[in-house]
Amino acid sequence: MWNSPKVGVLGGGQLGRMLVESANRLNIQVNVLDADNSPAKQISAHDGHVTGSFKDREAVRKLAKTCDVVTAEIEHVDTYALEEISSEVKIEPSWQAIRTIQNKFNQKEHLRKYGIPMAEHRELLENTPAELAKIGEQLGYPLMLKSKTMAYDGRGNFRVNSKDDIPEALEALKDRPLYAEKWAYFKMELAVMVVKTKDEVLSYPTVETVQEDSICKLVYAPARNVSDAINQKAQELARKAVAAFDGKGAFGVEMFLLEDDSIMLCEIASRIHNSGHYTIEGCALSQFDAHLRAILDLPIPPQSLEIRQPSIMLNIIGGAAPDTHLKAAEAALSIPNASIHLYSKGAAKPGRKMGHVTVTAPTMHEAEKYIQPLIDVVDEIRSKRSDIKTQPAKSGPSKPAPSVAVIMGSDSDLKTLVPGLKLLRDYFGIEPAVDITSAHRTPTFMAEYSASAAARGIKVIIAAAGGAAHLPGMAAAHTVLPVIGVPVKGSSLDGVDSLYSIVQMPRGVPVATVGINNSINAALLAARILGAFDSAIQRKVEAYAEQARYENMELKGTKMQELGWEKYFEQM
Amino acid sequence: MWNSPKVGVLGGGQLGRMLVESANRLNIQVNVLDADNSPAKQISAHDGHVTGSFKDREAVRKLAKTCDVVTAEIEHVDTYALEEISSEVKIEPSWQAIRTIQNKFNQKEHLRKYGIPMAEHRELLENTPAELAKIGEQLGYPLMLKSKTMAYDGRGNFRVNSKDDIPEALEALKDRPLYAEKWAYFKMELAVMVVKTKDEVLSYPTVETVQEDSICKLVYAPARNVSDAINQKAQELARKAVAAFDGKGAFGVEMFLLEDDSIMLCEIASRIHNSGHYTIEGCALSQFDAHLRAILDLPIPPQSLEIRQPSIMLNIIGGAAPDTHLKAAEAALSIPNASIHLYSKGAAKPGRKMGHVTVTAPTMHEAEKYIQPLIDVVDEIRSKRSDIKTQPAKSGPSKPAPSVAVIMGSDSDLKTLVPGLKLLRDYFGIEPAVDITSAHRTPTFMAEYSASAAARGIKVIIAAAGGAAHLPGMAAAHTVLPVIGVPVKGSSLDGVDSLYSIVQMPRGVPVATVGINNSINAALLAARILGAFDSAIQRKVEAYAEQARYENMELKGTKMQELGWEKYFEQM
Repeated sequence: MWNSPKVGVLGGGQLGRMLVESANRLNIQVNVLDADNSPAKQISAHDGHVTGSFKDREAVRKLAKTCDVVTAEIEHVDTYALEEISSEVKIEPSWQAIRTIQNKFNQKEHLRKYGIPMAEHRELLENTPAELAKIGEQLGYPLMLKSKTMAYDGRGNFRVNSKDDIPEALEALKDRPLYAEKWAYFKMELAVMVVKTKDEVLSYPTVETVQEDSICKLVYAPARNVSDAINQKAQELARKAVAAFDGKGAFGVEMFLLEDDSIMLCEIASRIHNSGHYTIEGCALSQFDAHLRAILDLPIPPQSLEIRQPSIMLNIIGGAAPDTHLKAAEAALSIPNASIHLYSKGAAKPGRKMGHVTVTAPTMHEAEKYIQPLIDVVDEIRSKRSDIKTQPAKSGPSKPAPSVAVIMGSDSDLKTLVPGLKLLRDYFGIEPAVDITSAHRTPTFMAEYSASAAARGIKVIIAAAGGAAHLPGMAAAHTVLPVIGVPVKGSSLDGVDSLYSIVQMPRGVPVATVGINNSINAALLAARILGAFDSAIQRKVEAYAEQARYENMELKGTKMQELGWEKYFEQM
Repeated sequence: MWNSPKVGVLGGGQLGRMLVESANRLNIQVNVLDADNSPAKQISAHDGHVTGSFKDREAVRKLAKTCDVVTAEIEHVDTYALEEISSEVKIEPSWQAIRTIQNKFNQKEHLRKYGIPMAEHRELLENTPAELAKIGEQLGYPLMLKSKTMAYDGRGNFRVNSKDDIPEALEALKDRPLYAEKWAYFKMELAVMVVKTKDEVLSYPTVETVQEDSICKLVYAPARNVSDAINQKAQELARKAVAAFDGKGAFGVEMFLLEDDSIMLCEIASRIHNSGHYTIEGCALSQFDAHLRAILDLPIPPQSLEIRQPSIMLNIIGGAAPDTHLKAAEAALSIPNASIHLYSKGAAKPGRKMGHVTVTAPTMHEAEKYIQPLIDVVDEIRSKRSDIKTQPAKSGPSKPAPSVAVIMGSDSDLKTLVPGLKLLRDYFGIEPAVDITSAHRTPTFMAEYSASAAARGIKVIIAAAGGAAHLPGMAAAHTVLPVIGVPVKGSSLDGVDSLYSIVQMPRGVPVATVGINNSINAALLAARILGAFDSAIQRKVEAYAEQARYENMELKGTKMQELGWEKYFEQM
C-alpha cells in the first residue's frame, strides 16, 4: 500500500484536519482544497494543496489531477464537479451517494425503498400556506418544515407548532425547496458511525447525542442506559441504511429512540461526523483512521471499532466574544482524563464549533463526574450569548444503572434484608435495585426479571427466601450472573429448611449461600465480587475489615482489659 | 494561557514530531530547529521554523529569538549554546540538567549524592589496558565499558567478558571518555516516565522494556507479572532520581529489577522517551502532552497519567533494504486494536527507528495474543539483516496470571475438587492456581496466601474443606476477595458438619457456600463471577446452561418419549 497513494479532500475545516492527523501517522499525503491556512492545511506541510473553494469547479478539477482518490469533509459539495472528474480519479463515497444524501428529501425517498423506518414526510411543491396547511392536517402538529438542501446544524429547519405558524415558517425558509416531516416524539437521540469498505459494512457502537440550539452538544459513548439489544438494533438499522448507497468511507447516521423502544432514522451524513469524534480516544481506530482505510482499501479489524472505555465528547462552541470559548479549553486542562482538540480556526463566531473535549473513564458514571465542571463552564459561556432563542438542553449525569439486584419472595423477608441493604447503600455507596419476585406466586415475572438482569447491567443478584426456599435457585436457573442466597428463618425448623433448599442445588446451577438470616454477609459478598473488578469498592471492603478489627481489638478488647471479664459482663 | 506561547524544539525527529502532534491539538506553535522537511516540520506548516542543525550555535541563537521556551527532543545538544541563550528565553529542562545527564558518568556521580541505587562504577582516567584490568579485578567480569558521552541505543557500550577482551574493548571505544560498570544481573528491565512540573514530580506507571541489539524493541505497560508494590517502588525511585535535576518536562528513567526484587537505576534521559510512546493510546495524556504542559506551566491532572488499558508498544526498525520495514507497517494494519505511527523519515537504514505500533486490550494476555503475529514479522525482517552480531531478544507472551485460586485443606479433598477443576480448565479455559493450604496445619502460610491473593491478580478463591471446615472462612478473614466454600463430606455426619462450618460464618466475613461435595457448582459460580465482568466467559456460562437444557430436554426427554418410562428405567 505504501506506493504513496495521495488523497484529495474537499474542505479543510476541523473534519479535514482530524483526517490529516490520521493520514500523517500513516505517512499518507493529503491534498486539501480550501483557503490557505485552513485548519487542515496547518498540520500538513507540503506543496500539494490546492487553494480555493470546494465549490469552485475549476479548483476541484485541479485537485483531481494531484491525487488518486478524492473524498469530502462536507456533503454540500458540487456533485456535478465530482461527476465530471470521476472518469480520471476515484471519488469516495460515490458522487451519486453524496448527491442523493445532500438533498434530504431525496435521501429519504431513497431510503424508503430500502424499508428504513423514518418519520412520515410530505414534499411541498408550491410552498404556499394552503399547501402546508393541508399537509398539517395530514401529519398533525407540531411538524417540522425542512429545507431539502443546505440544511445542517439546525439551519434550514423550522418547527411549526400550529396552523398559525405557517406564514412565519414559509417566510423563514423562503426560496428553498421544502418538505414537511411528522414530529418524532423521541426519548433519546442515537447515532452510529458506519464504515463502508470495498466488501463490508462495519459499524461503531451506538452512542447517545444531546443537541442544543440544533447543534450537537454532547455525545455519550456508548449510549447510557440503553440495552445491548437496542444498541445492536440501532447499529443494524444504521448499516442497512448506509448499505443503500454506493461508495466507501465513514457515514454518520442519526436516529431517534422512541418511547416504545423502536428506532427511526433521522438522517445520514455521507462523511466523518461530529458524533464520531469520541472514537479518537474511545476506540483503537478513530472514524478518521477508518475513513482513510476504507477509501484506500486498507484492512479494518472489526475489534478496533469497539469502545475501549466509556467516553463523553463535549463540543467547544464559540461564545459572545471571539475568544470566550477559550475559557472552556482552559478549564478542560484541569479535567481528569480530558483530551482537548482545538481546531485552530482563529477568532470564533457565536455558535461556531471551535474544538471538542473527550473524557474517558472506566465507568460512564466516573466520566460524567469528571466532565460535569466543564459542562458548567460551557453552559456559562452559552448563557452570555445574545443570539440564542432556544432553550438549553436538558442533560445531566445519568443515574448509574444498579450493579446489584436484591429480590425477595415476599415482603415478610424485607426485615431480614434491611441490614444488608443499608450496608450496601450507606457504607459502600451501592444503590441496589430492590424488588419482590416470588418463585411461586409470580413465576413468570421472576423468570423474566432474572433472565434480563445481565443485560440491564446487573452484576450480582441477592435473593432471600424462607421455608421451601426456591427463589435463589430459580433465579440462578434463569440468569448467567452469580446469585447470592440468603436463607430466611421461618416459623418452624429454625431456618434449616431454607438453608438446605438454597445450598443443595443440583450440579450446574450454583447459588452462593450465606448463613441463615445473614443479609450483612450477602451484602459484603456482593461488595467483594464487585470489588474484585473495581478497586474503589475493594478499598472499602478492606476498610470494613480494618474497622471490625479495630472495634474488636482496640475498643472491646481494651475495655475488657480495663474492666475485667466480670464487670464487662455486668455492663453487657 | 492562550496568549500564544511559542515553543522552540532542538531536533525535528520522531520525538519532535509527536510533540508537534500534541501541540497542534492545543493550537500551540512549535518552532523546530532541524533540516527542512524533518519529520516534525512536515506536520507543522508555518514560517517560524529554523533551518539548520541543533548543534549549530548560530541556529540555536536564531531559534531562541522566535519563541518563549526552548526544549529538546535529544540530550546530545550543545548545552553551552543553551547556557548562552538562557538569559533571553526559558530552557526546559534546565541546561544544567541536560549537561549533567548527557555525560553518563557525571549523571551517576550526581545521582549518587541523592542516594539512588546504581551498579558500582569506576572512572577511567588513562584508558589503558592496565587501568581497566585493575578495575576488572575490583568489579569482576563481565563488566560494561561505557563512553561517558554520546552514548545511546547501545552505541558507546562494550561488554568485557574477561581480561582477554580488554584490548578489543579499548580499541572499540578509543578516543572517548570512559567509565566501567559492574555487571547487573537483572531479571527484567523497567522504565518509568517522570514529569517534572513547576511544583510537582509526577510519574506514569512502571513499564517493562525488552531490548534487542541494544535498542528498545518492546514495551509492556504496565510491566507484566510485577506486583503493585514493585510498580510503586520503581515509580518512587524514578521520581526521586528526576527530582535531583533542575527544570521542567518529561524524563525517561530506565531501571533494572534484580533477582531479589530490588531496583537499581540504569540511566535517565532528560526528554520524552521511546519507553513512553505507549502513553499516546495507553493514557489520557501522552508523555508529549505532559511534557508540553509541564514546560508551559499548564495543569496535569494526575489521573490522566494512569494506564487506561494494558498496552504493548513495538518499534518498527529499519531492515536490510530501505523499505523492508514497511512490511511490518503493512502487517500492523490487520492487527486488532493496533495504532500505527510512521515517522516519515524516508528511506531506512538498518536498525533505524522508523515507526512504532501500540496495541491495547482489556487484558495484557489479549494484547499479547493480538501483537504476536506482528512480532513474528518484525523478527523475520531482523533475521534478514547482515549487520547484526547480537542475539535476538528472548521475549514471548507471558503466562497470564491466574484469576481463580483453588485451595484445599488436605490432598484428601482433591478428588472432590477434580470435577470443578476440569470444568474450569477444559470448558472455560480458566487455568486456576491450585494449592494445599491448611487452616490448621499451615495457618501462617494460609493467611499469607489469602492476604496476597488479590495483589497477585486473583479474583475469586475456591476453598474446599471437610469436618470442622475452617479453611474457607479463614481464607475469607484474610482476603478482600469473594471466597467460595465447598463442604466436603467426611466419614461421619454426612457432610452436614462441613456445611454448617462453612456457611454459618459470623456477620462481616462472608463465604459463598455451595452444596456438599459440589465442586462443579463452585467452578460455575467462579465462572459466573468472572463472567459478570468478562463477556467471553459469560457467553460460555450461557452455552453451558443451553447444553444442559439440550441434554435434559432433547436427549433424555426424547428418549423417554420414545422408550416409555419403564424401558427407560430398565436401561438406566
